[in-house]
Amino acid sequence: MSASAETLLTSALPPYANPGRMVADGIVFSDLVRVSQRLAHGGEWCEEWLEIARRYESLGQRARQAGRRESTGHWLWLASLSAHYGQYMLFEEPERRQHVQRYKVELYRAAAPYLDPPAIRFDLPLDGLTVPGYVRQPAGASDPVPWVMMLGGLESTKEESLLFENLCLARGMATVTFDGPGQGEMLTQTVLRHDFEHFARAVFDHAVSERPLDPRRATVLGRSFGGYLALRAAAGIPEFLGCLCWSGTSDLSEIEQMAPNRKEGFLHIAGYHEATDEAIEAVQRIVTIADVADQVRCPVLILHGNHDAVFSAATPDRIKSFLTNAPVEIHIEPDGDHCCHNLAATVRPALADWLADVAGIQRR
Amino acid sequence: MSASAETLLTSALPPYANPGRMVADGIVFSDLVRVSQRLAHGGEWCEEWLEIARRYESLGQRARQAGRRESTGHWLWLASLSAHYGQYMLFEEPERRQHVQRYKVELYRAAAPYLDPPAIRFDLPLDGLTVPGYVRQPAGASDPVPWVMMLGGLESTKEESLLFENLCLARGMATVTFDGPGQGEMLTQTVLRHDFEHFARAVFDHAVSERPLDPRRATVLGRSFGGYLALRAAAGIPEFLGCLCWSGTSDLSEIEQMAPNRKEGFLHIAGYHEATDEAIEAVQRIVTIADVADQVRCPVLILHGNHDAVFSAATPDRIKSFLTNAPVEIHIEPDGDHCCHNLAATVRPALADWLADVAGIQRR
Repeated sequence: MSASAETLLTSALPPYANPGRMVADGIVFSDLVRVSQRLAHGGEWCEEWLEIARRYESLGQRARQAGRRESTGHWLWLASLSAHYGQYMLFEEPERRQHVQRYKVELYRAAAPYLDPPAIRFDLPLDGLTVPGYVRQPAGASDPVPWVMMLGGLESTKEESLLFENLCLARGMATVTFDGPGQGEMLTQTVLRHDFEHFARAVFDHAVSERPLDPRRATVLGRSFGGYLALRAAAGIPEFLGCLCWSGTSDLSEIEQMAPNRKEGFLHIAGYHEATDEAIEAVQRIVTIADVADQVRCPVLILHGNHDAVFSAATPDRIKSFLTNAPVEIHIEPDGDHCCHNLAATVRPALADWLADVAGIQRR
Repeated sequence: MSASAETLLTSALPPYANPGRMVADGIVFSDLVRVSQRLAHGGEWCEEWLEIARRYESLGQRARQAGRRESTGHWLWLASLSAHYGQYMLFEEPERRQHVQRYKVELYRAAAPYLDPPAIRFDLPLDGLTVPGYVRQPAGASDPVPWVMMLGGLESTKEESLLFENLCLARGMATVTFDGPGQGEMLTQTVLRHDFEHFARAVFDHAVSERPLDPRRATVLGRSFGGYLALRAAAGIPEFLGCLCWSGTSDLSEIEQMAPNRKEGFLHIAGYHEATDEAIEAVQRIVTIADVADQVRCPVLILHGNHDAVFSAATPDRIKSFLTNAPVEIHIEPDGDHCCHNLAATVRPALADWLADVAGIQRR
């Protein structure tokens, strides 16, 4: 009646494959099974996901031509997400990674008007650069709308958070995502910089001036390395009512203990191509909240998994030690992995509820 | 960075576990991983899912007390779905199965007002019996609304189709689900009967008289054995504009080739406790569209997977041979399994699009 478990997910999955995260973010389980089986017969991770992405792209384009809005958005988004996971940890092949990254960006851009609610693109000029992002607003909300700024991390970008955005939208909050220095579409413009808050500030001002978003009911969240960026954003934008540091960090003091391709990833987005001591020290100087931590004054929720293999379980206390002027709540999930992806069905709705509470949304 | 594939899904999954279907219907992938791991260490399928159901129930109850509508609906629904898959193929333990079935029903009933849109319960008196069901209406639709009658099969009930309902709702169709003879809450009232259309007719009339559903823009679909029931419903209700037979059948001529617990299931819901020749013949007499097939006049779409291990790939042509007065379209997915659960992300949106087309919903 059903295939045996062994034929479902084979041991050929690469070490960086993260089925829990991928499925929780929207990757189709049976596609993961298919890729796993193809890898067991000589397939290659990125190429297999690209094939899946192209299949959804083709379905999405045909649906668009036929005037089927819902299927268009669904399939083009799945195409984008599949392409994303094809390239996400491919730091050892930067050109190929960039190529697939662009394909992913195009696919999401094509999906955007067909999502429910649509994702409205912006391209914000700033200091000779262009900061790209998306705004999604809950249907039928009265202006101005409470909202969440959502930040990706090392290899996630403005295109991967649709399902979490939907949790926020269902609770009456708009969502704003964008790529900052070293991320997604901005990586070709500028490497990682120390002053992420400068970019977050510009996006904040754009969002509340160009869209019906309430400057007095805004929160910020960042996942993984994005949790670090969220703290910097909260330091630079006193308007934020709360900051959710979702398995983030205060610094890269543990970079030497990371899996090789993750360490390589941090060096890569900072513009270094070899893991010399100098490069590592330079990245560590770029990534620290030490200089701005005392400016964070809004409530901070630090969610962390006890089994986090990226930022160790010691990280939340270290973050808190920097945040001398903010009320900090630490929530450790005893069975959680990095970002508690293995507990997504319990953790993510609760995080969205926390954001809604902080934004002052009335419970019913 | 991630657990190896072997530790994700173990070979301890029982033969009737259907990960592809379960995840496509909403079961949390990491819960499936957890159950799989527990089974490898002596756990028992139903009990493991019950533990998961109780955990979500507890989260849902707390969310309800705290006034968090979205999380209440989400967690109570997940509790119900987890309990469902705990008992779904437990035909060899009918009392225990019934006990868990009732728990599942209660959980869904508790979730119903908190779903988005809510599921509105009805209990329809008919010939001394009570037919229970749910109606969900798309938010903001103008009356009267096109709608879909959705039928479960051998072990699925009115509580398992939320995600497919959401596809229909997003396309502007209301959804009606109910338990018929031999299904869910009705199994304790009456075993499987020959005249399913009698019950479908009563539900149709109730739906269009008590709810703002359009009697002239209705379709019917049934999944698996429900595909057979949908054909009977279409025979008895000429108002239906279309009938989707989603991996269904015209009869049980292949019952002897089925997996033992599925065969046992059909006998069980028909009131037979031993697989005697008489019992099998009796069930085969109950289950056939031969007597009503010529009354089906609406367009019928038969979707079938080429690798269907329940109703063989010969089934669509056999169904078609009965439907002498209806325009029949057969769509075979070359790589599809039973109900094409392994292709859910491509097949299900397309099915919802077909229903929307048949109901005359304007494309945009």
